[in-house]
Amino acid sequence: MRNIKLVLQYDGTLYHGWQVQPGKKTVCGVFREKLRQVINEPAVVYASSRTDSGAHALGQVVNFRTASGIPARKIKDALNGMLPDDISVSSAGEEDEGFHACYSALRRKYRYTIRNVPLRSPFDRLYSYHFPYPLVEADMQIGARHLRGSHDFSAFKSAKGEKPCRVRTVELLDVQRSGDYIHIDVAADGFLTYMVRNIAGTLLESGRGRFPPREIKNILLSRDRKNAGPTLPARGLCLMEVDY
Amino acid sequence: MRNIKLVLQYDGTLYHGWQVQPGKKTVCGVFREKLRQVINEPAVVYASSRTDSGAHALGQVVNFRTASGIPARKIKDALNGMLPDDISVSSAGEEDEGFHACYSALRRKYRYTIRNVPLRSPFDRLYSYHFPYPLVEADMQIGARHLRGSHDFSAFKSAKGEKPCRVRTVELLDVQRSGDYIHIDVAADGFLTYMVRNIAGTLLESGRGRFPPREIKNILLSRDRKNAGPTLPARGLCLMEVDY
Repeated sequence: MRNIKLVLQYDGTLYHGWQVQPGKKTVCGVFREKLRQVINEPAVVYASSRTDSGAHALGQVVNFRTASGIPARKIKDALNGMLPDDISVSSAGEEDEGFHACYSALRRKYRYTIRNVPLRSPFDRLYSYHFPYPLVEADMQIGARHLRGSHDFSAFKSAKGEKPCRVRTVELLDVQRSGDYIHIDVAADGFLTYMVRNIAGTLLESGRGRFPPREIKNILLSRDRKNAGPTLPARGLCLMEVDY
Repeated sequence: MRNIKLVLQYDGTLYHGWQVQPGKKTVCGVFREKLRQVINEPAVVYASSRTDSGAHALGQVVNFRTASGIPARKIKDALNGMLPDDISVSSAGEEDEGFHACYSALRRKYRYTIRNVPLRSPFDRLYSYHFPYPLVEADMQIGARHLRGSHDFSAFKSAKGEKPCRVRTVELLDVQRSGDYIHIDVAADGFLTYMVRNIAGTLLESGRGRFPPREIKNILLSRDRKNAGPTLPARGLCLMEVDY
């Protein structure tokens, strides 16, 4: 069996996230169906990350095994011809037998985008969270420092529960203004559910002056979800890249 | 009566263009309804341009007369709070009695955006036309020169007929590559229906080598719509700015 790796881009606006769910339109569900038509057999598709409902991807990595002899590049071209226009395949290749899009991943990089000017824009409404009031990105940057490194991120988990081990290593957490936008870039070995959106919401609360940046250290140490900021909307979130 | 001028931005994807049409969702229809709620009276709204179904605007200018005493800035803020997220008001002010968004306009600027790399993108599918094969933008630029100035643009009218006077003055027609995109920027005193999309389609045919750039002069002089290229899709078209 060949082991094919693909990199996918998608606008998640119209999807209930990556993961297949009965009765709901999901990116994996739509992708798997087109893949079946291309390779003429059903395949189990592994992905680097289960992206949230409404979240986007520029670099979602998937793999699947197939007996088909179609070259990877042709699989890519066929999929790009058949997939809806909000999903595309940006690269394709063959991997070793042991490669697994999720378990082999060393690092995932996400970007959260905040539009931070008074006027909302019809053109980025699907790809950013609009916060019209002033944000001090220097404070957000200072607050972010406390979250770098290996920590128990229970304070930034989803409200509804989570895997038992909540220690993750955040290798990069950077806040940068670029014109009308503030980008929060975060890379880690793995993420708890909603962790990026909760970190973004907490940095935003600090940036608007609700608490001083150093308070983020106390929030982290409390391991209590109630102390962190709100979960920002999925539309501002994009899976940028996965390293192996 | 005060004469209020507003500049609107909209993502036209979900609308049947600007102009009100019975039984169809149009930008003006939605805008006028919200305006009525804000100023508490119905108003006739004049616009600089009737944008096509599915086309966008960064700088659509409108005006209306009202007995309301609400300051223009407050009308803007109230509208931005009530309009759907694909329409916004970017500026507002009061004009002389004689100002008319359409008749007072000296110059309208449109941009047509072609995505010109093999891979399509889920993120600009609503805002560009994807042409995956090579385009020689230098040829498009040379062809564009023949269309600058005052000409009878009958060859670039819509197939279904048009106003009797088809002479327009194109002050700017520029083709520039920027990364994955080719932008066609055009400014004129006025445009025939589909004129920008037909010019874009004709320049594209030249850029892909279907005919030499000088042939565009013959197409123009023929005044025959059948000689020009196809009408490119509305999603690549954006009304950028109107000068008065």
